[in-house]
Amino acid sequence: MAQRIAPLSGFPEYLPAARIVELRVIDTLRETFELHGFASIQTRSVEPLEQLSRKGEITKEVYAVRRLHADEGDAGTLGLHFDLTVPFARYVLENSGKLNFPFRRYQIQPAWRGERPQEGRYREFWQADIDIVGEDALAAHHDAEVVLVMLEALGRLHDQFGIPDALMRINNRKLIQGFYEGLGVADPLAVIQVVDKLDKIGPSAVGELLAGQGVAADVVTQILALASISSTSDSFIDEVRALGVTNDLLEIGLVELSALLAAVNAQFPGRAVVDLKIARGLDYYTGSVFEVELPQWRSLGTVSAGGRYDALASDGRHTYPGVGISFGVTRSLAPQLLAGNLSATRSTPSAVLVAVDDEESRASANAVAASLRTRGIPCEVSPNSSAYGKQIKYADRRGIPYVWFGGPQGQVKDIRTGSQADAQASEWTPPTEDLLPRVIVIEA
Amino acid sequence: MAQRIAPLSGFPEYLPAARIVELRVIDTLRETFELHGFASIQTRSVEPLEQLSRKGEITKEVYAVRRLHADEGDAGTLGLHFDLTVPFARYVLENSGKLNFPFRRYQIQPAWRGERPQEGRYREFWQADIDIVGEDALAAHHDAEVVLVMLEALGRLHDQFGIPDALMRINNRKLIQGFYEGLGVADPLAVIQVVDKLDKIGPSAVGELLAGQGVAADVVTQILALASISSTSDSFIDEVRALGVTNDLLEIGLVELSALLAAVNAQFPGRAVVDLKIARGLDYYTGSVFEVELPQWRSLGTVSAGGRYDALASDGRHTYPGVGISFGVTRSLAPQLLAGNLSATRSTPSAVLVAVDDEESRASANAVAASLRTRGIPCEVSPNSSAYGKQIKYADRRGIPYVWFGGPQGQVKDIRTGSQADAQASEWTPPTEDLLPRVIVIEA
Repeated sequence: MAQRIAPLSGFPEYLPAARIVELRVIDTLRETFELHGFASIQTRSVEPLEQLSRKGEITKEVYAVRRLHADEGDAGTLGLHFDLTVPFARYVLENSGKLNFPFRRYQIQPAWRGERPQEGRYREFWQADIDIVGEDALAAHHDAEVVLVMLEALGRLHDQFGIPDALMRINNRKLIQGFYEGLGVADPLAVIQVVDKLDKIGPSAVGELLAGQGVAADVVTQILALASISSTSDSFIDEVRALGVTNDLLEIGLVELSALLAAVNAQFPGRAVVDLKIARGLDYYTGSVFEVELPQWRSLGTVSAGGRYDALASDGRHTYPGVGISFGVTRSLAPQLLAGNLSATRSTPSAVLVAVDDEESRASANAVAASLRTRGIPCEVSPNSSAYGKQIKYADRRGIPYVWFGGPQGQVKDIRTGSQADAQASEWTPPTEDLLPRVIVIEA
Repeated sequence: MAQRIAPLSGFPEYLPAARIVELRVIDTLRETFELHGFASIQTRSVEPLEQLSRKGEITKEVYAVRRLHADEGDAGTLGLHFDLTVPFARYVLENSGKLNFPFRRYQIQPAWRGERPQEGRYREFWQADIDIVGEDALAAHHDAEVVLVMLEALGRLHDQFGIPDALMRINNRKLIQGFYEGLGVADPLAVIQVVDKLDKIGPSAVGELLAGQGVAADVVTQILALASISSTSDSFIDEVRALGVTNDLLEIGLVELSALLAAVNAQFPGRAVVDLKIARGLDYYTGSVFEVELPQWRSLGTVSAGGRYDALASDGRHTYPGVGISFGVTRSLAPQLLAGNLSATRSTPSAVLVAVDDEESRASANAVAASLRTRGIPCEVSPNSSAYGKQIKYADRRGIPYVWFGGPQGQVKDIRTGSQADAQASEWTPPTEDLLPRVIVIEA
């Protein structure tokens, strides 16, 4: 059938080599999460629209989903989830009697937001989330745990694939909220949501917005002074105290943040910065908050974020406090993959092309391939029995490094160097670095 | 936030142990496909609705997708794809200049159909497809190739996870169409779509439908006679010839089907049956067609199907003939997973729980876990420092087989047997069968 070709802005798709990179990154995240005892779950892609419409600003970005020919008796309209947290909270409530708490889960799935398409924003995007959720209580050391697991995962992406080093900015909602309460601010949450815009609109615009909310000028000054504090050591504690605000919640926040910084510095020195302007816009955070950027790819903005929530989900009998962090797989990778700056050494898993002399000997070529596969060597048999030169070209176009000639007792040629040697299909193995496609970073 | 708990019929979700099985199955499919040189692609979840509405019967099942607050300038309405073939055809056209043909791809993704919820039917379901697509031409041996790759994958699911043996029914559209043409049938495609209902409504109802289309009684008899032929050997050729119809396309079909049967029998004797009533309802098949069932789970019906299409996609300059086969991951697994008949030995990746004596020694427990992880051993540290009995219970509830006590030079206990021995975190490794959760089939 002839089709209209219709690329859709905001719905990235990759060519096979780029997809290999994405898969490799997802595999690495998954492996790291599983090593730390996080169990995979997948939630359905849709939630009742009413559940998705309760988050204020995001409502207008929700995609509604409806059967083209809906029946009268159909349930209410559905929507595609816009993150993995809302469906996870629902999953925990729905299955609370069958889960063991604290429950450690990871979830790597797409989410959808009908944002205005623009650089670095996607309408369909993959997220990789980890969360630890308790029943009624969850110990504070899990805050550091999810941060360390994510930093370990990002460290592997750096070491294995050349993705830039991560920098995590950390703060604590109790610290901010306690400070605001100590200042006599009436609605700390409203102030937090304004301060969250600091990076986008700058301190003077934030000050004006706060003044517009009726916050007194000296209080605005204090709020902006707190937000300007940033440190890689415990010196932030003295800087906060120097502002002269006293409040019990503030003290708890200082202790928690100091403990988190110490835990990160012990394992990943220099990877965390206390940054007291980090607030996260979402209203459900109640303690630690984190934001990760890749300084060498700073234009991406925040690639990973999360925090502690004391009551994301509640069913009347229990509340389910938790802490989690989400990594934006598409957000981080798509610009590099689509530009070709991040790619793979070949566009196929095949390490070997088994050449075919003539169609009568195809069975012999198939036998070579079957023999190689028993040892985990991805390979394919030439689709035709054209001249060897053409078959080599077939391999070359795909980046397949080896071509096999002459049946099980044959010869194998490294087409990059031209070197060719006798080989037995039951024994020969390519060098480890050629077994699977490798990720390569192409400097612009 | 308190939430209404809303299970949605047709959108299956699994508990962690069941999800481990699903992941393991998907990994096995992927590994098999990659060993055969199939490259992964992912397509976006949505297509322009007009592209999804061209398939006749399926139109009413499409889910339309629309931004809640769509702008005036927004592109036309989108729909969730209902299979992976339509998006793949579009992907091939969109990227034809950048792909190398024949292009071998696999695709493991969800699809959506707003079917009336019923036993074994899902509104959101995962499919695993492989296809080989050529530019203008594709050799016949690829028909056998995709069949053999899928049978190899299903054989691994059987050997590794106890999923029942597969049986593949094969036929050839040229054979049927040639036979009908030889009989003078005016609209062979219309007849094929009626014959496709044989299993559901039986031969007499099919005969009535054909008579209603104006097909003569003696022709109906011949059509039903052809459809009744089934064989595990080439004897089907003589049975067809005994019906006395001669046609060139029929002869080509007989040769192709015989070759496909021979190829399957050479590698997987007994796994294929020629069944001349298999037609596949879709209009784009033009040669080989396949349907797979799991006879021990026959109530599932067809779990995998596919065939040869000579012009699924065309851009005016080129056509892209191909052959492919799709495995219904959710369709095959969900009934067993949801019923608990197929599960895993534990609900977490963790092979080891590292116990914590008291909160002061948590760092020592963390060091044990870090050491185990360097050797690929999934583990977690106890969330609290309660009595050892409680920590062992934590492990037991999750099916974690080992609990570690006493720091890096400590002891490890197999909580299934109660045996406990000295162990060094830098050296100890669990038996291979305990490293990862194992899939288990629970007989009803």
